[in-house]
Amino acid sequence: MSALNPVLDSIDRDFDASLDRLFGLLRIKSISTDPAFKADCRKAAEWLVEDLKTIGFDASVRDTEGHPMVVGHHEGPSPDAPHVLFYGHYDVQPVDPLSLWVDDPFAPAVKEVDGVRVITGRGSSDDKGQLMTFVEACRSWKSVHGTLPCKVTLLFEGEEESGSPSLHPFLKANADELKADFAMVCDTGMWDRETPAITTALRGLVGEEITIHAADRDLHSGSFGGAAANPIRILARILADMHDDTGRVTIPGFYDGVEETPAQIKQSWDALGMTAEKFLGEVGLSVPSGEKGRSVLELIWARPTAEFNGISGGYEGDGFKTVIASKASAKISFRLVHKQDPEKIRAAFRAFVEERLPADCRVEFKKHGGGAALQLPYDSPVVTKAKNALSDEWPKPALMIAMGGSIPIVGDFKNMLGMESLLVGFGLEDDRIHSPNEKYDVASFHKGQRSWARILDAVSK
Amino acid sequence: MSALNPVLDSIDRDFDASLDRLFGLLRIKSISTDPAFKADCRKAAEWLVEDLKTIGFDASVRDTEGHPMVVGHHEGPSPDAPHVLFYGHYDVQPVDPLSLWVDDPFAPAVKEVDGVRVITGRGSSDDKGQLMTFVEACRSWKSVHGTLPCKVTLLFEGEEESGSPSLHPFLKANADELKADFAMVCDTGMWDRETPAITTALRGLVGEEITIHAADRDLHSGSFGGAAANPIRILARILADMHDDTGRVTIPGFYDGVEETPAQIKQSWDALGMTAEKFLGEVGLSVPSGEKGRSVLELIWARPTAEFNGISGGYEGDGFKTVIASKASAKISFRLVHKQDPEKIRAAFRAFVEERLPADCRVEFKKHGGGAALQLPYDSPVVTKAKNALSDEWPKPALMIAMGGSIPIVGDFKNMLGMESLLVGFGLEDDRIHSPNEKYDVASFHKGQRSWARILDAVSK
Repeated sequence: MSALNPVLDSIDRDFDASLDRLFGLLRIKSISTDPAFKADCRKAAEWLVEDLKTIGFDASVRDTEGHPMVVGHHEGPSPDAPHVLFYGHYDVQPVDPLSLWVDDPFAPAVKEVDGVRVITGRGSSDDKGQLMTFVEACRSWKSVHGTLPCKVTLLFEGEEESGSPSLHPFLKANADELKADFAMVCDTGMWDRETPAITTALRGLVGEEITIHAADRDLHSGSFGGAAANPIRILARILADMHDDTGRVTIPGFYDGVEETPAQIKQSWDALGMTAEKFLGEVGLSVPSGEKGRSVLELIWARPTAEFNGISGGYEGDGFKTVIASKASAKISFRLVHKQDPEKIRAAFRAFVEERLPADCRVEFKKHGGGAALQLPYDSPVVTKAKNALSDEWPKPALMIAMGGSIPIVGDFKNMLGMESLLVGFGLEDDRIHSPNEKYDVASFHKGQRSWARILDAVSK
Repeated sequence: MSALNPVLDSIDRDFDASLDRLFGLLRIKSISTDPAFKADCRKAAEWLVEDLKTIGFDASVRDTEGHPMVVGHHEGPSPDAPHVLFYGHYDVQPVDPLSLWVDDPFAPAVKEVDGVRVITGRGSSDDKGQLMTFVEACRSWKSVHGTLPCKVTLLFEGEEESGSPSLHPFLKANADELKADFAMVCDTGMWDRETPAITTALRGLVGEEITIHAADRDLHSGSFGGAAANPIRILARILADMHDDTGRVTIPGFYDGVEETPAQIKQSWDALGMTAEKFLGEVGLSVPSGEKGRSVLELIWARPTAEFNGISGGYEGDGFKTVIASKASAKISFRLVHKQDPEKIRAAFRAFVEERLPADCRVEFKKHGGGAALQLPYDSPVVTKAKNALSDEWPKPALMIAMGGSIPIVGDFKNMLGMESLLVGFGLEDDRIHSPNEKYDVASFHKGQRSWARILDAVSK
């Protein structure tokens, strides 16, 4: 009998208790981007350390300039066993607007929605639910066999949703401790409910916040309208200028380093049968907003974007105020692909803004993190083992896909620690991560644990 | 000896007490646009009624669908005395952002700023301080002569800062009661600290709020960026399209009814020596934002505008959130001149927005009041008497000027009650009405009272 089967049985038997543990972590309001929740972030890190100790990890909370890291080590069965570094993040997105949540975002529960049992709450999918699939797989291995099949190092970050400012210094300072044969990252999704996926391409990210300053005070639009600069008008012009009529980004040099996707890859994506109507129909839309003449999968997987994530200025309350604001601001992000250089794009964007500024106004820039895009190998032994392990667990065989979002850690592992990453996750498109009413399928959490148990078994051989 | 001089002396003697009365009114947080302050608006109306009764007015709070009106009647010296209707408004603008106020907006005080004694607080100028100049002039006439020199009806509104939704129904229902020989309105400004002004042209106003709806939920910009419609991008494009490179508004038909200002009038404005540098320099700016090739006074007095008063969408908190919002909204106002038709412009604007909407998005419109522009006579007997009375009080002779803001009541008085209006006020450009740190010069409040005493005397003869 294989070593794996009793581990899978243990996962099944222990599943209700694993849900209770996840709920404990989900109740902690670890919103990293809002300083009001600093203590909650530390509490989440401490919760994880306590839990990891029960599995025999040598685990600790590690201070940084921002929110702390969690690091845990498990020796594995023998000194020559493979060594994997598993990464996840315990911080979550803000929950506003709270009024749109059906259930309390920090009072997790299991409920049935449209015939599917789901775990509700902020972080249930991104990324607490996902990281706990791996922790629970380790727990069952330990309980059945007294050890893990590999040497395992865990790294849980608390700043993933706020640009990871402490990550580089931490990796640099602890490179020897963290270096493993390869990394495993659980922050991605499945192709659909039945089909697991390994993600092999990731878009990069540049985040910028701009504030246009005009008059030195708010003005009455009756007294000054038509004469004084209006920062909302200036901001709208800048944002509107950033795309042309074909959906291309107009910032000079923006497409430097962008490659055309090979026809063979595009064909494999087209074969998935994903139309714009199907993809966008899930969220009540139908017309792709990006570059014309490209499929929706190419748009989200292989093309760069400029998106506006927030805008603010003037009177935003109920009713009306005839004011010309003294300032207006916007949060803007660029998704990068292939060899686009994040810092060149940041500089080109800033020049683009400056050029459009009236002589009597000024702009303030704020940097919100950034990272280049990444292409991972399609065919390493680890990828092949993982693909087979996933295909054993789920109804349909695993797919190799690209991903629209960025996971900067993957680039850092490659560049700073010399490790490739295996990106496997069990999120679904309808998980509403970053939105009200985030959920994680109970099946994702359960079969996710079983998937990691299988992958650990496969890569240990 | 004239009847006037003892009244002016009484104003001087009673000035400190008049300040205390004004402070009582300023302490009431009568913000009409925010439903949270509904009770305060009523309190301000009740305060005024109590005060008017002490001057012998037959005064009452009059309920409407919104905030109440105050109406007061004083018979005057004889049945054939002239009858004036005086209008002011007791509601005030919101105070946000509160953090920018040096003093509590609702704890009025007198203090010296740059060598000038000023009254601080929200409404100190717009319009509580202004309307009380007239009430105090009446009080001194009454205390010296036992009556007023004219028959006086007072109408104080509580919704001027929120589009005056109850005004039309109220004027219509009470036309007989409110009709007078002419109206006096105190909601305008001086030319400068030494030069009083009568305002003879007013821009009209159309207020609109638009909300662009895209996906049915907030989306992760990594998963959906480049594919899903972004309502901030759509909104920015609509706003940016509304002006061309010469500063003209591009909405089709927008300039219908706009007339060129006669050369003679433009020359009289040019003779005032007001440059763009001087006008905008007061608020830290220097470059006129409106139509190129026109003087700054023409821009604010005689040209129509489209201004953006507020914008909101996506994540506006600290830090960054990689979200594509489900909606974004803006508050937009148009200042109208001459014969521009408010409802035609509202319809043209809405069509302009609809045309720019992707097929899978929708827009929601909200109307925020509106009124046509108004041109008043330059040379009626009342205007001439008022001009002389003002010139007697102030260091420099009174000017006839235009005004950038709108006072819809003036059009209503003309169209619904058949009355011309005399627009006299003592506000100054640096009063910061609608902004943090609103103030009213002590001299405006004092000489304003004396000015009304003189005008009442002049028009009674």
